[in-house]
Amino acid sequence: MYSVAVGLAKILRIPQRSTLSGVTDYVSRSNMARSTATSSIFKGSKDRFNGITVDSTLEPCDSGAFSKCLKASLDQWITENRRAIWFRVGLEQSDWIPDLTKNGFKFHHARDDWVTLYRWLPTDQTCNIPPYAHTLLGVGAIVYNEDTDEILVVKEKYSVVTPMWKFPGGYVEPGEDITVAAEREVMEETGIEAEFKHILSFRHAHRFAYGCSDIYMVACLTPRSYEITKCNREITDCVWMKLDEYVQHPEVHENNRLVAEKFIEFKNHKRTITVQTLIHPAIKTPFRVFTISKLED
Amino acid sequence: MYSVAVGLAKILRIPQRSTLSGVTDYVSRSNMARSTATSSIFKGSKDRFNGITVDSTLEPCDSGAFSKCLKASLDQWITENRRAIWFRVGLEQSDWIPDLTKNGFKFHHARDDWVTLYRWLPTDQTCNIPPYAHTLLGVGAIVYNEDTDEILVVKEKYSVVTPMWKFPGGYVEPGEDITVAAEREVMEETGIEAEFKHILSFRHAHRFAYGCSDIYMVACLTPRSYEITKCNREITDCVWMKLDEYVQHPEVHENNRLVAEKFIEFKNHKRTITVQTLIHPAIKTPFRVFTISKLED
Repeated sequence: MYSVAVGLAKILRIPQRSTLSGVTDYVSRSNMARSTATSSIFKGSKDRFNGITVDSTLEPCDSGAFSKCLKASLDQWITENRRAIWFRVGLEQSDWIPDLTKNGFKFHHARDDWVTLYRWLPTDQTCNIPPYAHTLLGVGAIVYNEDTDEILVVKEKYSVVTPMWKFPGGYVEPGEDITVAAEREVMEETGIEAEFKHILSFRHAHRFAYGCSDIYMVACLTPRSYEITKCNREITDCVWMKLDEYVQHPEVHENNRLVAEKFIEFKNHKRTITVQTLIHPAIKTPFRVFTISKLED
Repeated sequence: MYSVAVGLAKILRIPQRSTLSGVTDYVSRSNMARSTATSSIFKGSKDRFNGITVDSTLEPCDSGAFSKCLKASLDQWITENRRAIWFRVGLEQSDWIPDLTKNGFKFHHARDDWVTLYRWLPTDQTCNIPPYAHTLLGVGAIVYNEDTDEILVVKEKYSVVTPMWKFPGGYVEPGEDITVAAEREVMEETGIEAEFKHILSFRHAHRFAYGCSDIYMVACLTPRSYEITKCNREITDCVWMKLDEYVQHPEVHENNRLVAEKFIEFKNHKRTITVQTLIHPAIKTPFRVFTISKLED
């Protein structure tokens, strides 16, 4: 569907620090000559797809001059057969935005202090820019006490339906590993120290918050402490509950009941999704690979 | 960390059509009285967190009047002890944005034709608004021909490093199921019709395109056709390759080699992540639950 940019993303499937929109990699920020309002053409940063990214915080231009600079720049970029043009506009330069949208720019993504707009210049090729992330990622934790055959369950405060017994958990934070998020959420909500062991299941569903799809992973953890100190802000109740009781409990969502049943099945077979950390040979950064494996006892 | 809004998302872990920011659910659009430039206060739509969402396309206001309307509205919302105020601003009303940022609004997320800004009003509480999605989702496909012990592999066109033999695959589209994405990508890239069977593994890594994290799922599919028609736009080569040859091949990324080894292990044990479709009891929509299961022969 979108050949070049997706092509690259597909090829690599490895951390890309300097690709797609140039937004994450404004090459040689510190070395770049800063333009001023007197510049008639934005310099921007060229990307490997023959696109240009302009960062408003690196090339300030007052709103009076902006319109003229933009038009001159677009003329030049069209002559040069550029493809995607990106403007990353900071809060301080938000008066650029009306001019950009009047010149055919659309919104792509945003984060607190900036928004990124883009315009696809080629008129003879379909725009091949991949959309921004549209998947939320959460994690629930089965903290299993083998000695007592109990799991740690919570009732949350802000329920719009009947409060249910749930696995502690929450959203994975930006840049956070799933393994770390599971341990952090258990600690925050229940005060229990627990260690990530493996992934048991995940649920993928659509039309969640902000219209996004949502992946909810269920991780299994081994407790290192047992004394509950619940988070009063988020949790109304937190107990260790017998696994069999949980599976039968009326106040359990269908998804969680299925997952608990699968956990019992797992206990008898010990094959699950475990995690290995690999180091990427080219860029030397670690990444996590989760695969079906026989669990070591 | 962010109690109320996350609290709700945690509780439900089910499709939410009317929550968080109100952006996906501008209640009673059709019934709402449309304000005009003569309104001094934006009506917006109230959400369950005591927040307000204004949609610029539903309450048009010319740029001359906007500043005054915004100030009057903010005064009223502060008096009413509102919490998060959201403005979903369409391309046509982008001249609202400089006024919004001058009044303490920040960017939250964006999609082609609109950008959403927010301001957290309470001065005595930390902002508890969850960030927008920050996880990209892709899928690779192991299409395994049991009769010949071969898998379908491709070399992609837009490689920045040595082209490698890879599983066909690509990004999951907004709202698309992983199972469907795997089948679609195989068909698009190789012309092979194949049926989703199960998930074998996934990789989670950070700092990918647009600064997002990235989950790359590997799905196993059974081929229903065998004649390759490669996509010339994205693929330079596509072959059926003996599984053993693939595992040994020098032009295979470490991640894919590990996954192929795990596939061989799986073949001997047949326990993997399978998918079940459940119907949510309250909202009657289907969702997909992937769990460790013994594969039926």
